[in-house]
Amino acid sequence: MSKSINTKYIKKSKPSFSVDETVEKLLEGNIDALSRTITLVESTKQEDQDFSNEVVTKCLPNTGNSIRIGITGVPGVGKSTFIESFGNYLITIGKKVAVLAIDPSSQKTGGSILGDKTRMETLVQNPNVYVRPSPSRGSLGGVAKATRESILLCEAAGFDVILVETVGVGQSEISVRGMVDFFLLLMLSGAGDELQGIKRGIMEMADAVVITKADGDNLKLAKNAMLEYKNALHLFPASESEWIPQVAHCSAYENLNIDKVWEIIQSYENKTKLNGFLEKNRISQAQFWLNERINELLIAKFYQDKEAQNDKLQLEEKVKKGIISPFNAAEQLVNKYLKNE
Amino acid sequence: MSKSINTKYIKKSKPSFSVDETVEKLLEGNIDALSRTITLVESTKQEDQDFSNEVVTKCLPNTGNSIRIGITGVPGVGKSTFIESFGNYLITIGKKVAVLAIDPSSQKTGGSILGDKTRMETLVQNPNVYVRPSPSRGSLGGVAKATRESILLCEAAGFDVILVETVGVGQSEISVRGMVDFFLLLMLSGAGDELQGIKRGIMEMADAVVITKADGDNLKLAKNAMLEYKNALHLFPASESEWIPQVAHCSAYENLNIDKVWEIIQSYENKTKLNGFLEKNRISQAQFWLNERINELLIAKFYQDKEAQNDKLQLEEKVKKGIISPFNAAEQLVNKYLKNE
Repeated sequence: MSKSINTKYIKKSKPSFSVDETVEKLLEGNIDALSRTITLVESTKQEDQDFSNEVVTKCLPNTGNSIRIGITGVPGVGKSTFIESFGNYLITIGKKVAVLAIDPSSQKTGGSILGDKTRMETLVQNPNVYVRPSPSRGSLGGVAKATRESILLCEAAGFDVILVETVGVGQSEISVRGMVDFFLLLMLSGAGDELQGIKRGIMEMADAVVITKADGDNLKLAKNAMLEYKNALHLFPASESEWIPQVAHCSAYENLNIDKVWEIIQSYENKTKLNGFLEKNRISQAQFWLNERINELLIAKFYQDKEAQNDKLQLEEKVKKGIISPFNAAEQLVNKYLKNE
Repeated sequence: MSKSINTKYIKKSKPSFSVDETVEKLLEGNIDALSRTITLVESTKQEDQDFSNEVVTKCLPNTGNSIRIGITGVPGVGKSTFIESFGNYLITIGKKVAVLAIDPSSQKTGGSILGDKTRMETLVQNPNVYVRPSPSRGSLGGVAKATRESILLCEAAGFDVILVETVGVGQSEISVRGMVDFFLLLMLSGAGDELQGIKRGIMEMADAVVITKADGDNLKLAKNAMLEYKNALHLFPASESEWIPQVAHCSAYENLNIDKVWEIIQSYENKTKLNGFLEKNRISQAQFWLNERINELLIAKFYQDKEAQNDKLQLEEKVKKGIISPFNAAEQLVNKYLKNE
């Protein structure tokens, strides 16, 4: 980080741009520049990381001006359909909407944005919308970094509502919760929580539970489910945000109550801006990621060190043969590694 | 580790012993030497760690000759009472029994061995029994290290059945599962799993479920519960050990079926010694702890480094002010730290 890399250019894409040119284009809302930079953020190459780090840093003064919304729910709940309706609504009231997906196991799942592009057709074509699929590889930590920095870049590019979609697999929700201001849980009516695979922990993270597909015969079921969730949410301890989680139902199909969801998010934003929680929460999120990333890098760099890995292989054999205790071996390895660095 | 510390002596306790003297006494089954060494294993002082590391290493050839049994269950299930009955039974058949407790949050809980010493009176007084309360402080990783090395030291001292008691709090069970050959879950009849706070994950780790307090009016309930648990356990995927988890009931009060529990453990031991799983499992446990401890030490040493902490404080301020991204800051900090080491 110490030496300037302003003179380096993005090689992959033609034409190439310097860091300053990229930042300038980004701040103008240029989608190509945004896409290219996110690609570099997602890259594991050191030069790409260095370049994008500089861009992100230079963009920082122009970030923070959006509401960051995490959206989760099990496959089948209608996430893509909801996001499409919700996104279209936001555009009609003059918003610029970015949709990012986080899915650390995206090789396996079929429900992520990647496969749903066709279902979001109306959104993708709109110039006020930017849809970015999940990075297709990387550790949870790497995906978290890429997503969080993508949020910042989208903000710098002028997007004022950021939707972060997550697949319902537990760890990624917790990760997304640590990046967004507002966490929206989509649920189906008529299926028990168990059936929907939603853990109590996920419910507790939600700022709002929205029951989808509440149309036709489903509407009555949805209203009953609303009451149940309201009761369940009341049992949770009050949050530091002083916000009481809301429950609503909507139908993307009938375009019903989509505005209601935005209303809830707006009142959350107003309340937490007034009581200072929004800002405070963002600061503690940044501290959280600082600590997480330090831990992750300390471990990753040890495993990237060839000599340390050779030493480890040798001592591991001794551990397996019972010649040295694993704890003693670990201490020897780490001490030697840190002395060599 | 590189320089010999054979010349160093245990200072805290009088009289002092060298590493070799300590090992010699330990191998003779001297309880004072065992207790003193476990105290050093639990100590956070570097010299104590160095000393006990040497003792453990020298004891290693004499370890592994016990059956290591993890015992868990929610408070109120009668863990201490069961352990007392079970321990007394084992003594009558000529075993030497060590009882260790693991409880990373022992400040808070009232159900650990520490508070139950009186209830284990008959055990504590027996020369063929060694009861060691949980270390009162330390991280989960630190407690895991202390417990695992205590197991080895007890084996070196001639104990052939090691009981590791854990309080029912999730994380510590997983930790104990990674140290023992056999995992025993104690349950009450008449209370649903939910009520007993036992998560499905804990059930899945069990090699046997034993329903306690199966006497008087409770006996019928216990027999019904047995059937239920048998059915539940059959739903779990087969384990690599080829062992089918067993269900039994017992009464410590009436001294009923305590021998049956030992019979189950014996047949597990026979089966897994024959098919090689016992040894294979111990080797992969050792590898697991090697990796866990490496990760833990890498992080701990960074946080012990004063310069790194100063740098971190400064960059953390910049992160909080939004001048630098937390990911960028983490990379700068870790790179500088590793170069300085």
